[in-house]
Amino acid sequence: MDSAILLVRVLDFVGTFVFALSGAALGVERRLDLFGVLVLAFVTAVVGGIVRDVLIGAIPPASVASWHNLALAVAAGLLVFWFARAVARLSQPVLVFDAVGLGVFAVAGTQKALDHGIDWPMAAVLGMLSGIGGGMVRDGLTAQVPTVLRSEIYAVAALAGGLVVVAGGALGLPPVPVALAGIGLCVFLRLMSLVRGWRLPVARPPEP
Amino acid sequence: MDSAILLVRVLDFVGTFVFALSGAALGVERRLDLFGVLVLAFVTAVVGGIVRDVLIGAIPPASVASWHNLALAVAAGLLVFWFARAVARLSQPVLVFDAVGLGVFAVAGTQKALDHGIDWPMAAVLGMLSGIGGGMVRDGLTAQVPTVLRSEIYAVAALAGGLVVVAGGALGLPPVPVALAGIGLCVFLRLMSLVRGWRLPVARPPEP
Amino acid sequence: MDSAILLVRVLDFVGTFVFALSGAALGVERRLDLFGVLVLAFVTAVVGGIVRDVLIGAIPPASVASWHNLALAVAAGLLVFWFARAVARLSQPVLVFDAVGLGVFAVAGTQKALDHGIDWPMAAVLGMLSGIGGGMVRDGLTAQVPTVLRSEIYAVAALAGGLVVVAGGALGLPPVPVALAGIGLCVFLRLMSLVRGWRLPVARPPEP
Repeated sequence: MDSAILLVRVLDFVGTFVFALSGAALGVERRLDLFGVLVLAFVTAVVGGIVRDVLIGAIPPASVASWHNLALAVAAGLLVFWFARAVARLSQPVLVFDAVGLGVFAVAGTQKALDHGIDWPMAAVLGMLSGIGGGMVRDGLTAQVPTVLRSEIYAVAALAGGLVVVAGGALGLPPVPVALAGIGLCVFLRLMSLVRGWRLPVARPPEP
Repeated sequence: MDSAILLVRVLDFVGTFVFALSGAALGVERRLDLFGVLVLAFVTAVVGGIVRDVLIGAIPPASVASWHNLALAVAAGLLVFWFARAVARLSQPVLVFDAVGLGVFAVAGTQKALDHGIDWPMAAVLGMLSGIGGGMVRDGLTAQVPTVLRSEIYAVAALAGGLVVVAGGALGLPPVPVALAGIGLCVFLRLMSLVRGWRLPVARPPEP
Repeated sequence: MDSAILLVRVLDFVGTFVFALSGAALGVERRLDLFGVLVLAFVTAVVGGIVRDVLIGAIPPASVASWHNLALAVAAGLLVFWFARAVARLSQPVLVFDAVGLGVFAVAGTQKALDHGIDWPMAAVLGMLSGIGGGMVRDGLTAQVPTVLRSEIYAVAALAGGLVVVAGGALGLPPVPVALAGIGLCVFLRLMSLVRGWRLPVARPPEP
């Protein structure tokens, strides 16, 4: 198997698992029943990748045709459900899992879009979209304002991770270190925005 | 025509009509204008099936390529709009129509996904999705928390209906009685959750 | 190039730009950061067209495969961000840009669906959908009740514009004047509903 395809599979696996953890943790926090928790875990884990696959023409999407990601998301959901107290002891479980999933999916999504011949600017956008899509639906389903639209570096971090992959590919660098660098940059930017409050400028509308 | 395909068509027809009734009834309850009622009827009726068709690669989806489901949904919407007082006399019109549509679409969606070669666990999930999709969008558009995420057996009922189809197919049973059994199980579970308050367990987060 | 295809391209270009302006203007109003404004501009501008393209089987959609619409939306977003005070001086910037985009996309979407062999009633619905889709997502992401579901002529205006295209095609009239007539009718109906308060009837539920 092509090493780029294998890399995308491994990253999709990791991203699916941590996003499922983040969805399940939010579901427990909101006191959903067991099934609601599993649905939220699965939806958060696969929506970004499914949208990406539909848009690049990889139909049926991997998460639809086979049962692997379903099993993975259910396993993550059960884990969180049974160990709800332990998970809640993490200071911000949803945010932590979410940051890792964001970086992993942004990198995997960009790589897969490039492999399907999408222009590089849109490949980075599709990577960003597969990173932020799951969290947007997760937040929407639980009636929160999506994280992506609050004043924090979130989608920017995903985009930066995807652009590392684009740059690495253009320079002919080996894909695995490039992917790790992209994930690292994304997680770093996201954590800085949470811990240090890094922000982008806001336009000032005229005073009323 | 293959009897399984004919069965899917008949079920899609029935499900489209009752979901359109549920969407229109909610639209009238929310005092939308005539067009808003028709849009809500149509969207509720076809979104689940369209998403299912896109994900299994049946593009353009049946509800998009032809005008039949549009006409059916508009007819259901006009019916509810003109007989708004009579419909409101039903104790819970949205819930009743919704339960039947849920079962019918769950069964039809599972069958169609199996016919397109999707693994059986994901076929049942796609059936569930075509069952719950319309109601999710209907509730989202009218700014309600989606029924599927409140603490009631809802998606579970749809999944159970789909699994009956999967089991019936694996055992080689005739499709029509299997479909009726699947619909019956789904509607029964849904009504028990409404009338008797059947629920799934909720994880206990630590006290604050 | 076929003149109908060229017409669709030109209209898509104009519609993308004005919808991006409307999304960016709403983003600035809501005090989103620069990236949030650009995301909202891009999403508002391309979602309707992407959904249309997926449903008619034109995959990958034009806005995904190439970077042109991305660049256009980013340019519109930067423009609004930098000239935020000037834009805010327009009495209702979001509504003005939105009305023009609605008409342009409704006409372009109907034409493209007809070109792909969709039945005419659903072609007009797809045109309406590409007109209203961007605004629905824009409003949803910023937690507003979608304009389309408030008691104003909105989707009706889009549908009327699309039906002009259908009628013009059936009568064999030249496409450019027909497109301009469709856009004009849609914008006129939308402005009348805003300025004069034109509405559709509302069903009366029984008094409590």
